[in-house]
Amino acid sequence: MQNDCFNFKLEGQDGKARAGEIATAHGNIQTPVFMPVGTRATVKTLTQQQLLELDPAIILGNTYHLYLRPGHELIERVGDGLHGFMAWPRAILTDSGGFQIFSLSELNKINDEGVKFQSHIDGSFHMITPERSMEIQRALGSDIVMAFDQCPPLPSTPEALKTAVERTLLWANRCCEIKLRPYQALFGIIQGGLDLNLRHHCMQALLKLPFAGFALGGLSVGEKNQEMVDFLDNFVEHMPKDRPRYLMGVGTPLDIIQGVRAGLDMFDCVLPTRNARNGQAITHAGPLSIKRGEYKEDKRPLDPMCRCQVCGTHSRSYIRHLYMVNEYTAGTLLTYHNIHFYLQMMREIRSSIMEKRFDDYCQEFYKSYICTL
Amino acid sequence: MQNDCFNFKLEGQDGKARAGEIATAHGNIQTPVFMPVGTRATVKTLTQQQLLELDPAIILGNTYHLYLRPGHELIERVGDGLHGFMAWPRAILTDSGGFQIFSLSELNKINDEGVKFQSHIDGSFHMITPERSMEIQRALGSDIVMAFDQCPPLPSTPEALKTAVERTLLWANRCCEIKLRPYQALFGIIQGGLDLNLRHHCMQALLKLPFAGFALGGLSVGEKNQEMVDFLDNFVEHMPKDRPRYLMGVGTPLDIIQGVRAGLDMFDCVLPTRNARNGQAITHAGPLSIKRGEYKEDKRPLDPMCRCQVCGTHSRSYIRHLYMVNEYTAGTLLTYHNIHFYLQMMREIRSSIMEKRFDDYCQEFYKSYICTL
Repeated sequence: MQNDCFNFKLEGQDGKARAGEIATAHGNIQTPVFMPVGTRATVKTLTQQQLLELDPAIILGNTYHLYLRPGHELIERVGDGLHGFMAWPRAILTDSGGFQIFSLSELNKINDEGVKFQSHIDGSFHMITPERSMEIQRALGSDIVMAFDQCPPLPSTPEALKTAVERTLLWANRCCEIKLRPYQALFGIIQGGLDLNLRHHCMQALLKLPFAGFALGGLSVGEKNQEMVDFLDNFVEHMPKDRPRYLMGVGTPLDIIQGVRAGLDMFDCVLPTRNARNGQAITHAGPLSIKRGEYKEDKRPLDPMCRCQVCGTHSRSYIRHLYMVNEYTAGTLLTYHNIHFYLQMMREIRSSIMEKRFDDYCQEFYKSYICTL
Repeated sequence: MQNDCFNFKLEGQDGKARAGEIATAHGNIQTPVFMPVGTRATVKTLTQQQLLELDPAIILGNTYHLYLRPGHELIERVGDGLHGFMAWPRAILTDSGGFQIFSLSELNKINDEGVKFQSHIDGSFHMITPERSMEIQRALGSDIVMAFDQCPPLPSTPEALKTAVERTLLWANRCCEIKLRPYQALFGIIQGGLDLNLRHHCMQALLKLPFAGFALGGLSVGEKNQEMVDFLDNFVEHMPKDRPRYLMGVGTPLDIIQGVRAGLDMFDCVLPTRNARNGQAITHAGPLSIKRGEYKEDKRPLDPMCRCQVCGTHSRSYIRHLYMVNEYTAGTLLTYHNIHFYLQMMREIRSSIMEKRFDDYCQEFYKSYICTL
């Protein structure tokens, strides 16, 4: 552990599922936690006021996007980092930039030094190394900083997975050399695809470094959902118990429940925000596509079991109208509801773990969510 | 006057400028008033929750747009009108649909019977008559219903203006024959271009009908700004003193001040909302284009003299970033500020009239607003 602000304590357990609390310089985070994605210093379609109403303890910012626009140096000059720049008083996690470099940019060259790539916006050339990623995240001033890793898609050859792990380890060591802000905590990322031995090898090596938490990267990147679930069931319990466990970029409500069941603490995903903008509400009866003609005159809220402001105010009919005529507000209302759904689900999951009835919670959830899928 | 819910009382006067109060079934409206435009059952980019924070006493809905999508009958079935459909508890004014038919649709035929046109969305054929406009607005259930009029562009030939006036009068008579909801108040629209005699002729004829208020239509439709201002200065004082006077579709803060000075009570305009989406903030120092490079690292709020939530929270630099990367939230933040600016201006104008210092208010306003234009 690198600082006094960051701390993790386990508060309850039910089977392998854990309930805990992460302390940061920008407030405490009850886990399991879902982190809404605020890619470019905003959770898309929401104002920070709306976000505060929804009450997430932590949100995520994307280093790659913020580095390109408006630039981490501007963010540091104007706001002394992301908290000030976007006026977000609570915790922020930034990714390392690696995942987006691999998925969005025109990749030019990757070697042990780092990654050379062209911006997806203007084709300009950039080089990100582990050191550079740390410098950028230091400027952004996030509470949780992610190590710069290499994330291969699945399926990959065993050789490619092994190379990615070795490079991830090399880079992890170099990330730990860079001084961050006093309150920033650095998480290591475990790679290795679906290969349990390779994952264990990666983790053991990372454990020698002073990481404040560990993430599983390289999942939900092309493998079958059941493969991911099986891997989590077999691996997560072996991760250190005294530090937060973060499953990167996952996923659906069902994925998150499986992740919690396997012993994970932290999750992030664009699903609730991106799908909202595509007209999908996540409800207790499964996903609902507001475009469908059947909702044209439906006076019910998006989710009759939901207590969010949108469900307390508006009908499916009204939101469908806004969506069909391309009003921005449709995206806002659906995003607001979806984020509320995810955060409320995490609160209920946590209570059920504390009260040792997590299995019952899951059965209840499945009964309503899956029967109607 | 047609009902017991609607009432207008004059509460103060300073020169020709008036302060009053309109009572409706959905709350009281202090005048002079600005009505944010909620074209398709939403004030673009804002939720109703945000709109309630901004606290307008009345908003406007567009009959043409709502008739086409989702349809007034759906709105009546689902929400018993617009208030229920969009969950807006306060007053609503609907226009007659005429202005948009003339400006947006493919016009097929206009005669004394009504207007035949093709939808700008799918080319479908529609016919709107005065009777039909009243039926649609009755279904929408707005508090203030506008008579169906013919609005010619400026400049028009004297003959065209005269024809439009005669048709407007013919239609006004037919509008008054249609039974509305008990709480709905019908306003007449005065046409006649910049011709004072024609305007007076139109008004005298409309005065024989039981209208609850009178609007000036056919302004800000191509004439020079000074021509409009001169016309208002010469005409408005002759309009009935015991009923609200509404200047349709106008305008900039300066236009509104001129309108109030001439004795008008009600205003609506898409400017604060549309310009917001195009990156323009309306400030005490005049309009500000957030795109400009000079704001890139500007830590000041959009308008340092503004007390809205956006100006209390965010820097120009942050909002510029959101705008430059096309984040929806840029439009939301700028709209929120602009609507606040207009509503706050109207509150200050009203106080200054009540305290007989309207001229001082205007001088103050001009000093900061115009010097920097």
